[in-house]
Amino acid sequence: MAPVRNARAIMNDYPSGYPEPGKTLVYDDSQTIDLDTVPLNGRFLIKTLVLSIDPYMRGRMRSGGPSYVPPFELGKPITSGGVGVVIRSEKEGVKAGDHVLGLMGHQEYSIRSSLEGMVIIQDKHGLPWSVYLGAAGMPGFTAFVGWKKFAHSKPGDVVFVTTGGGPVGSMVIQIAKAEGLKVIASAGSEEKVAFMKSIGTDVAFNYKTTSTREILEKEGPIDIFWDNVGGEILEAALDAANVNARFIECGMISGYNSGGAPVRNLMLIVGKDITMRGFIQTRHFDEHKDEFYATIPEKLAKGEIKYTEDITHGLDKVGDVMLSVLKGTNKGKAIVHVADE
Amino acid sequence: MAPVRNARAIMNDYPSGYPEPGKTLVYDDSQTIDLDTVPLNGRFLIKTLVLSIDPYMRGRMRSGGPSYVPPFELGKPITSGGVGVVIRSEKEGVKAGDHVLGLMGHQEYSIRSSLEGMVIIQDKHGLPWSVYLGAAGMPGFTAFVGWKKFAHSKPGDVVFVTTGGGPVGSMVIQIAKAEGLKVIASAGSEEKVAFMKSIGTDVAFNYKTTSTREILEKEGPIDIFWDNVGGEILEAALDAANVNARFIECGMISGYNSGGAPVRNLMLIVGKDITMRGFIQTRHFDEHKDEFYATIPEKLAKGEIKYTEDITHGLDKVGDVMLSVLKGTNKGKAIVHVADE
Repeated sequence: MAPVRNARAIMNDYPSGYPEPGKTLVYDDSQTIDLDTVPLNGRFLIKTLVLSIDPYMRGRMRSGGPSYVPPFELGKPITSGGVGVVIRSEKEGVKAGDHVLGLMGHQEYSIRSSLEGMVIIQDKHGLPWSVYLGAAGMPGFTAFVGWKKFAHSKPGDVVFVTTGGGPVGSMVIQIAKAEGLKVIASAGSEEKVAFMKSIGTDVAFNYKTTSTREILEKEGPIDIFWDNVGGEILEAALDAANVNARFIECGMISGYNSGGAPVRNLMLIVGKDITMRGFIQTRHFDEHKDEFYATIPEKLAKGEIKYTEDITHGLDKVGDVMLSVLKGTNKGKAIVHVADE
Repeated sequence: MAPVRNARAIMNDYPSGYPEPGKTLVYDDSQTIDLDTVPLNGRFLIKTLVLSIDPYMRGRMRSGGPSYVPPFELGKPITSGGVGVVIRSEKEGVKAGDHVLGLMGHQEYSIRSSLEGMVIIQDKHGLPWSVYLGAAGMPGFTAFVGWKKFAHSKPGDVVFVTTGGGPVGSMVIQIAKAEGLKVIASAGSEEKVAFMKSIGTDVAFNYKTTSTREILEKEGPIDIFWDNVGGEILEAALDAANVNARFIECGMISGYNSGGAPVRNLMLIVGKDITMRGFIQTRHFDEHKDEFYATIPEKLAKGEIKYTEDITHGLDKVGDVMLSVLKGTNKGKAIVHVADE
């Protein structure tokens, strides 16, 4: 067979604020690959099916400095969670037709020498592969493990969840509602507010049109805060917190494009005996993955836990989707669909 | 006997920044009291011996707003921890000669109807009463209980203690050293640095002449941070923290006179899986006081735990001493000596 295009989304220029589509990440279709003859030398060839776009990726668009993830390299395809299908293999334990889940390059085809950072997955529940990047994947696990380890929930607790329309927040909402707690949740569009209401949120509001501070004053005080935002919203949550509140710090998107949003009333964690716990899901994965995969995918397939997706087609759209998740204009878990099987 | 002076230190004017001696708190000696004939009507009469001056008192010098302690009332004596001796009593269970410890008005004599907020104390160890306001009192207990509940120390941990020359910090240092941990500690004078070295601090430095950030880069990363300061020092500690670090938030004196010092790199608690725990010692007192009083006063009396005091004589000096503890120019636990027995 003749060589085919192997298009890529390349890290072209580190942004100082929001990433700029067409500049920060660029689409490159100059490479080709012959799928039948490319030498594997003991490796395996993957066709990329779906890729995840997540807010944390902004943190990798930098030239250096310490962080929990290394920077994306200039001139190379970025990477993120993805699902692919093996189309040829010379690797023992990997065969054509296997589906792999893990950190994948943003390119249509890739050759790997090992499964490091990947797993072979089987879908027992009839879920689309994209769901293994969202509710049944990293964001869903983030919600599951953060709540399990750090919420210390008790009957009567009031919970405030930010980015409640997203894959992490909406899972947190549903876990908290399953425990019978009162849930206040915010998102940035009416569509997301409607979704949050549909999954049982007691007080769902659009933070762009409604004051978070006023909502919390009326509906709080809060016992558990799920923070994906930081900055001013974290300040409002500190003001509205009960004594002994637990703040689960999952992300601080408000500061990702500005180098960090200041928090001025941290002193309240002293006066209110607040516990603030940050975490990165990967550090808790091995300990809790079995419980997650044994319970959550089945609930998703049965519709007992709901999710939303916002699927965009083509690697040429990666820059736009990246900006949308950082601006919060996406309508569900952001997925780039690269190819059908 | 003729009436005697009953001098008082009065809350005169709420400060916007640092308190101003002679304006914020004023000395008033216009009242008198006849110790022999003042009617008690079932109450008891206390002669004030020593009073404690602590940084948290700045938080009470305000007109209102939520806090964990109510404001000082304008025109009335401020209150703080103190020790007094009962000179007359009509109250059952309280007799002349009893020593009482608790929240006391800043006046030479006071009449109380109940022991609420006070305890009758006996010194079994030959310690000066003032020590029951410092190392054997509220600050010592703060260190004891904060470490016990929130340090989660393990062998090999590196600890960073701020205000290490003060009554809380110096107790934390000695507890950590007793556990064999490496201790880095800061204070604001060479005298305090010398004291910190004398109690075993591995790396003692003057934050006014040495960069905290440079010390932590060289001597860290840190696993446990005892924070009495907040603001820029907290930012430096976040930068120097290890994964899974514990931040014990005891106070944030850097913001007490400015309405709160901003913290810009809080996002690191996510990336480093940091637990930040604030607390107010009173909420943990009933649960842990017995263990504290059973162990710490004896160690202090035997010299196994060291302490320093900075004793000033006279209620007319309360305003100056208050400013000194907020500026950090005091040389040890700040005590106002009001009278001998």
